[in-house]
Amino acid sequence: MAPDTTSKQRHFTEELAELKRRLLAMGGLAEERVRLAVRGLVERDANVLSDVITGDDELNKFHVEIDDRCFKLLALHQPMAGDLRTIVAVVKINNDLERVGDLAVNIAEAAQRYVSHPPVKPLVDIPRMATLAQSMLHDSLDAFVTGDQQMARHVLDRDDTLDELKSQVFRELLTYMLGDPRTIEPGIDLILVSRHLERIGDHATNLAEDVIFIVAALDVRHHSVE
Amino acid sequence: MAPDTTSKQRHFTEELAELKRRLLAMGGLAEERVRLAVRGLVERDANVLSDVITGDDELNKFHVEIDDRCFKLLALHQPMAGDLRTIVAVVKINNDLERVGDLAVNIAEAAQRYVSHPPVKPLVDIPRMATLAQSMLHDSLDAFVTGDQQMARHVLDRDDTLDELKSQVFRELLTYMLGDPRTIEPGIDLILVSRHLERIGDHATNLAEDVIFIVAALDVRHHSVE
Repeated sequence: MAPDTTSKQRHFTEELAELKRRLLAMGGLAEERVRLAVRGLVERDANVLSDVITGDDELNKFHVEIDDRCFKLLALHQPMAGDLRTIVAVVKINNDLERVGDLAVNIAEAAQRYVSHPPVKPLVDIPRMATLAQSMLHDSLDAFVTGDQQMARHVLDRDDTLDELKSQVFRELLTYMLGDPRTIEPGIDLILVSRHLERIGDHATNLAEDVIFIVAALDVRHHSVE
Repeated sequence: MAPDTTSKQRHFTEELAELKRRLLAMGGLAEERVRLAVRGLVERDANVLSDVITGDDELNKFHVEIDDRCFKLLALHQPMAGDLRTIVAVVKINNDLERVGDLAVNIAEAAQRYVSHPPVKPLVDIPRMATLAQSMLHDSLDAFVTGDQQMARHVLDRDDTLDELKSQVFRELLTYMLGDPRTIEPGIDLILVSRHLERIGDHATNLAEDVIFIVAALDVRHHSVE
């Protein structure tokens, strides 16, 4: 290999490692924002909620930066096979993480309306949904960096639990709403929060599918996974 | 240019044109599924709704096929500048369109629950939201194919109207639900439908932003657009 090629290759490898680090940092931030939004809801903390609502800039900057890094890597290095697959996956994961950030804002907005009413009930299942969705997000990113297909498949398994919790939240809140009209408006906001959390799980699922795609070079999307 | 390069270039140009055609076809299908889901809701047609719910396969096949085409174009032709930008945009638009298909299913599911109750009210704003969201989707895809930046910016403008309609739907339904507990459960499903339609508008907005990005090579995301 000519020295030039070697140096270019080394540069590419470094840039790709840095891209993954930035994506992980973005994922950590997205997780943190979901955690904060749900903490603000549970603790009825208006300051925390308003911080989440107004604090989407950092994640948006990550989004633009990572897109830009992907684009440059594709344009300057014309990567092949596995590396190409990784970069295309990062483009998608980047979009998923940005959407997770938007959902954290949506949760905080619903929570802000919710805490302007007396509490409908002690919140149990919603924090459980949040913990589950965050763990799915965390593990799918971990699986991406380590290339751990088993971990990615385990994320897919947890999506059903999240879905069951969402239905449970709905049924319980409906009972309250039917019994006392004052709980209708805040009840709807809790239902919306549960839907937002379910969608965060969907994004983690997308991410896990991308990991499986990279590792196995096998398209598991829209197929059942054993 | 050597004959080999010319032939390879011609092949690439043809493949890129075909990619755009397939993406347009996918967009048409996604639009059609949204239209059907809302028609099923308005006409209380259980067959139409069940067709939408079970008929996501074709769109999912498009999703896998288009991803595959993008990947091959990147791997085999290592496109530069404008073409690279277009292909990376297609990867994202493809994801957005697949999500629009999922949202059509979500709308049909909520509608299926809704039509199992007596109607809460004549549906006026939800069909308006659907028409608006579809037109945004349609125009953003058109703008993508023609590279019409003005049309793309016009899509961004309409997102606020969709948001206002969503709030209007919510306020009106809340009044019904407070007045008659029997409308609570179906009312929630209409609120969910309005949220799904709003999100279809968000996907059209993403798409329009990608178009502006390609045309202007200017990142308008996370910046205000005049």
